[in-house]
Amino acid sequence: MNVPEKGEPYTIAWEGETGSIIYIDQTLLPGRCEVMRCTTVDDLARAIRRLEIRGAPALGIAGAMGVALAATRSREQGLDRFREEIRRAADLLKGTRPTAVNLSWGIDRVTRKVMMASSIEEAKVLAVAEADAVAREDELTCRKLGAFGEDLFPADCTALTHCNAGALACRCWGTALGVIRSAVEAGKHVRVVACETRPLNQGSRLTCWELARDGIDVTLIPDSSAAYLMRRGEIDLVIVGADRITRDAVFNKIGTYMHAISAHYHEIPFYVAAPVSTFDLARVEKEIAVEERGRDELAWCGDQMLTPDGVAVHNYAFDATPLDIVDAIITEIGVLRPPYSRSFRLVRG
Amino acid sequence: MNVPEKGEPYTIAWEGETGSIIYIDQTLLPGRCEVMRCTTVDDLARAIRRLEIRGAPALGIAGAMGVALAATRSREQGLDRFREEIRRAADLLKGTRPTAVNLSWGIDRVTRKVMMASSIEEAKVLAVAEADAVAREDELTCRKLGAFGEDLFPADCTALTHCNAGALACRCWGTALGVIRSAVEAGKHVRVVACETRPLNQGSRLTCWELARDGIDVTLIPDSSAAYLMRRGEIDLVIVGADRITRDAVFNKIGTYMHAISAHYHEIPFYVAAPVSTFDLARVEKEIAVEERGRDELAWCGDQMLTPDGVAVHNYAFDATPLDIVDAIITEIGVLRPPYSRSFRLVRG
Repeated sequence: MNVPEKGEPYTIAWEGETGSIIYIDQTLLPGRCEVMRCTTVDDLARAIRRLEIRGAPALGIAGAMGVALAATRSREQGLDRFREEIRRAADLLKGTRPTAVNLSWGIDRVTRKVMMASSIEEAKVLAVAEADAVAREDELTCRKLGAFGEDLFPADCTALTHCNAGALACRCWGTALGVIRSAVEAGKHVRVVACETRPLNQGSRLTCWELARDGIDVTLIPDSSAAYLMRRGEIDLVIVGADRITRDAVFNKIGTYMHAISAHYHEIPFYVAAPVSTFDLARVEKEIAVEERGRDELAWCGDQMLTPDGVAVHNYAFDATPLDIVDAIITEIGVLRPPYSRSFRLVRG
Repeated sequence: MNVPEKGEPYTIAWEGETGSIIYIDQTLLPGRCEVMRCTTVDDLARAIRRLEIRGAPALGIAGAMGVALAATRSREQGLDRFREEIRRAADLLKGTRPTAVNLSWGIDRVTRKVMMASSIEEAKVLAVAEADAVAREDELTCRKLGAFGEDLFPADCTALTHCNAGALACRCWGTALGVIRSAVEAGKHVRVVACETRPLNQGSRLTCWELARDGIDVTLIPDSSAAYLMRRGEIDLVIVGADRITRDAVFNKIGTYMHAISAHYHEIPFYVAAPVSTFDLARVEKEIAVEERGRDELAWCGDQMLTPDGVAVHNYAFDATPLDIVDAIITEIGVLRPPYSRSFRLVRG
């Protein structure tokens, strides 16, 4: 299978001929860029758990395509049992990553279509069409979000980002990195400082890979030096993605909160770029389960032992940043500013 | 050569019989605890540059012993040329790590003795005696500092620390971890949260190793999750070491500043534990060179490539924390509190 060329880097796509999902295995980057194929929901669940597919918007697409996969591959003949099978697939996929809300959002969009269908054949057609719509809308969403967001960028600036909210976290273009791409496309001089993003190094491995590939100026730093670069006057703004936005907080990759506090302390703008599908305004911070991941992510790096056997670890995958230190949330429907209790009305529609 | 037993973990020592320096190679921990021997100043300079020996107080001892090594191994017959050789050795050693002031302090202490001697033989005896004094005083200093510092600890608490300011950063006991050891010895229940300390993982490799070895409760986290643990109410205080304390700032391992800002934001005490030899009150932050280390520390982990070839890195080894967010500095002469312009008079003594 061919690796996507620059300019058409589809992180995840539906392959019509085979009725399967193809995706770039992100655990192999930057050493290898390999496209993999999923033909069962179990395979997809495994790929999501292993973070071969990750990034909130990409998880939304994966969830949508996962339901389409379950529908098209089903051999059930009775509509009720078919629907039951789809519900089980949806539950299985939702359980893979509890914090990113887009996953459930994508699953629910396609599941609703399936449940509305009056025949299995109709359900299969609707499921694939809806999953395809989710993917195509994601691309449009990133472009719109980028256009709104780049307006916040000075003509010459250094932007700090954390984790990967780029083409690899979406269908293409990206959310936080999409804003950066839009700013560069608009002729602005943007230098990116990418935090490595421990423990899985999505910053070093993914953000640096995709920005360098597009010829965007990127410098890698340890997560812990962001505040010091701010002190030295080397950062003009911070921009990150989000996995879930509740009424009071932004959930995103562990480390985001620390950057927000540091930006606040140094009076540097802190921006979040996220599609409306990331919002979960029915909930507040304390209602959200934060995924804890395994010990090995911190205890080992490849075959190198980083800490003695038996030492316990705390490995939260996400943190929560209170909205009072978020200067703006960039969405595809516009830039939301404080007071968010008012601007969130736009999202609620 | 035997590995030091628990209870007598001398990180660095003078071996009288052979007239050489023995030390634990800290780059091999936690996989292997090996004691190495240095017989030349060039070897020692290499060991310091490679961080086989690291930690501000241990560097003070290494510097002192390095000058003693140069003196005892010298074959010069004329006093002037002998002194010249010692000066060259001192300059070579001082150039290995620019930020930690203890290194220069240890080198200068022994060099002064050498220069005062009226014969080469006398100089050799004085040099070894002074280096030995520096090492023994370090142990006493850590014990005194620990006794002053543990008074700041509640009877039951969770302390966050960064990098390694422990037995491995000193002759034994430690500064920040020395305070923790003293608190545990005093019967307090102290749980330690150790930040892994990228990019060289002194937290995971060294702090976790030495605390687990002593049976002290330690949990490893990524550096970037410290602020989130504070938000969750899981941290009662922060305690770190220092590489240099100027009139206005504490220089310590990169990441310290970010923890200080986060502690300040959450109103959690932020303590620095450092011997008086770490103070450099003739200078201010902007006069201090911050060491930048190589690209490979961030780009590789063992033989695993973490970022594509060609991506630039910023790899500051230290940062500077302004004194206005430091709640106390724990030294062997007592606990210094703001306003530091007044309490620093004790240090100048």
